[in-house]
Amino acid sequence: MRCDVPAEPGFRSAVSGLYRDEVTDTLASAGEAATLRRIFPRLPRAATALVGPGDDAAVVAAPDGRYVVTTDMMIAGPDFRWGWSSPDDVGWKAAATNLADIAAMGARPTALVVAIAAPPQTPVSTMEGIADGFRSACDALAPGCGVVGGDLSASEAFTLAVTAFGDLEGRRPVLRSGARPGDVVAIAGTLGEAARGLRALFALAVDDHGAPDASRAADVAARVPEVAVQRRPTPPIGAGVAAARAGATAMLDVSDGLALDAARLAGASGVRIDLSSGRLGDDPAGALAGGEDHALLACFPADASLPAAFRAIGTVTGSPAQAVPDGAGISGAQEVAARVSVDGRPYLGPSGWDPYAGWNGAAG
Amino acid sequence: MRCDVPAEPGFRSAVSGLYRDEVTDTLASAGEAATLRRIFPRLPRAATALVGPGDDAAVVAAPDGRYVVTTDMMIAGPDFRWGWSSPDDVGWKAAATNLADIAAMGARPTALVVAIAAPPQTPVSTMEGIADGFRSACDALAPGCGVVGGDLSASEAFTLAVTAFGDLEGRRPVLRSGARPGDVVAIAGTLGEAARGLRALFALAVDDHGAPDASRAADVAARVPEVAVQRRPTPPIGAGVAAARAGATAMLDVSDGLALDAARLAGASGVRIDLSSGRLGDDPAGALAGGEDHALLACFPADASLPAAFRAIGTVTGSPAQAVPDGAGISGAQEVAARVSVDGRPYLGPSGWDPYAGWNGAAG
Repeated sequence: MRCDVPAEPGFRSAVSGLYRDEVTDTLASAGEAATLRRIFPRLPRAATALVGPGDDAAVVAAPDGRYVVTTDMMIAGPDFRWGWSSPDDVGWKAAATNLADIAAMGARPTALVVAIAAPPQTPVSTMEGIADGFRSACDALAPGCGVVGGDLSASEAFTLAVTAFGDLEGRRPVLRSGARPGDVVAIAGTLGEAARGLRALFALAVDDHGAPDASRAADVAARVPEVAVQRRPTPPIGAGVAAARAGATAMLDVSDGLALDAARLAGASGVRIDLSSGRLGDDPAGALAGGEDHALLACFPADASLPAAFRAIGTVTGSPAQAVPDGAGISGAQEVAARVSVDGRPYLGPSGWDPYAGWNGAAG
Repeated sequence: MRCDVPAEPGFRSAVSGLYRDEVTDTLASAGEAATLRRIFPRLPRAATALVGPGDDAAVVAAPDGRYVVTTDMMIAGPDFRWGWSSPDDVGWKAAATNLADIAAMGARPTALVVAIAAPPQTPVSTMEGIADGFRSACDALAPGCGVVGGDLSASEAFTLAVTAFGDLEGRRPVLRSGARPGDVVAIAGTLGEAARGLRALFALAVDDHGAPDASRAADVAARVPEVAVQRRPTPPIGAGVAAARAGATAMLDVSDGLALDAARLAGASGVRIDLSSGRLGDDPAGALAGGEDHALLACFPADASLPAAFRAIGTVTGSPAQAVPDGAGISGAQEVAARVSVDGRPYLGPSGWDPYAGWNGAAG
């Protein structure tokens, strides 16, 4: 997903609505200890926490003898804009995107740790709102999952780094590398909607200088339902465990667009994937390019019963000459075209988002 | 620790030596996938990794049925300066400081996940150097511990977010809250040296405008041995497990100065601590104020044999009227004075570092 909108200009206004001059209850005035005391009670509790926040480290139960772990950052500017997202939205999305990576392993999310770096003039209420967002997301998407620890730091770039944990409950993890020719390719969750919501914000929720504008964003959100999908994604977290139980051979979280992520799965498995455009909704091109869907793409043996959350969208068609050992290594349009076809023809459309190629530090 | 030196001015020069115009092999030109392919082989392997980097999440063994987890951020500007630290130094320090938090629970470090947000014009070699630092630190401080996953993002503020894991090997975690009157207070590791090293850099390793200067830093490092302690701390990681085995009642990582961290331990335990200035080395005041020591402060029953790495520096003297339930809540000099005495007199010296009160976004 490209971020080719002009940055919210200047430092104070870069977080429009947050750094108003009248705000006096800031991180700098409250200090770290008082801020932590205000955040802790708002955070969701983890049922697996043996030692929670407040010590040098947390202790979490792993009854399975293993734990699943993933980490992801969200940064104001490249990844979200204060003019378009409330602190609660930001906490929700940071939780939801990490929970989706746990679900994509076939695991049940159990715990999060959250490190936040914020400018000292950030209102304490912003941190409270983020904590509320984490609680809402865990309660809605992964009940029993909670925040077991964290860290507060100072930075000019408002940054959230979330690490999420999951329990495999005795099952094998569902990797990207297990797809086999003949498998059914299926999806749980939305495709293309989050990207459509972001395009609406880029096009319509900016001020006369092209910078994110909160009041216009409210108008756009009222008219374009996909804006809510962009701001507060609801990945089908429970579908991850359901897929594992149904015998999924491979699975991943679709975060960078269906075509690119399908190519990653195919590359890791040493196979090719053919998708049916007729099963990709009203806007197949938008579904294929997408971005930030946080849907679950899974492969199942042809004779498996798909879990209720999944719908078939294609098939695993066979091995290309050369397997790619590491699914993270798919980077170019050629590789995507070699791995993914649509209605039998190589996919040649736009694919994927690279955090470095796709972002301009000066322009946001 | 205050960061009251002028910032390395401007964005390109803020990472002096890294963003020279002739550098063409950058994150933006290489892209995420190629960068990951170059970093992965340099990272330390974790003996406990069942599924390592490259999938949606890692899977790590927890034979104990529990895992210890901590997270911490390091940000260019507030936490380190490229003019004073090489990429290898930065990786080493990010690993070492997180390993110390695991050790402070009495656990053996097993695994790390590393999220890095970097400007797109960062040379790929910087990321390789950071990976080398992680490998060196794990090999030297916690053999068998390795990196099992991570994330790359774009940000104008170079940011590392590390989450570390540990194994309690069947033991109870050593919390901050278990100290009892009559216990011996002991320390493993250095006190005050890291802060002295940083003061030397602030005073002597800046250019005529007061900004960090790499060539002057090299001169200072050759003359002031404590600069190495600041750049590449060597916390006594193995001493954490040794303390737990010897029956430590409470322990923490001394990162914000001995006086403040002793007050946190005392507050969490509902006790007071008296330190002996004669046991704090040549510069007791420097040892008490300190900062970034990453020593382990532990309490032991009076009849325990101290592990070899520890030396006694005081005693737990009794309960004040009111216990503080959360050791993280100690924030003010009054609270420190109520909890910590030196040679029987309340400690009234400088104490501790607050990330928000102590940092000025404009001045670094």
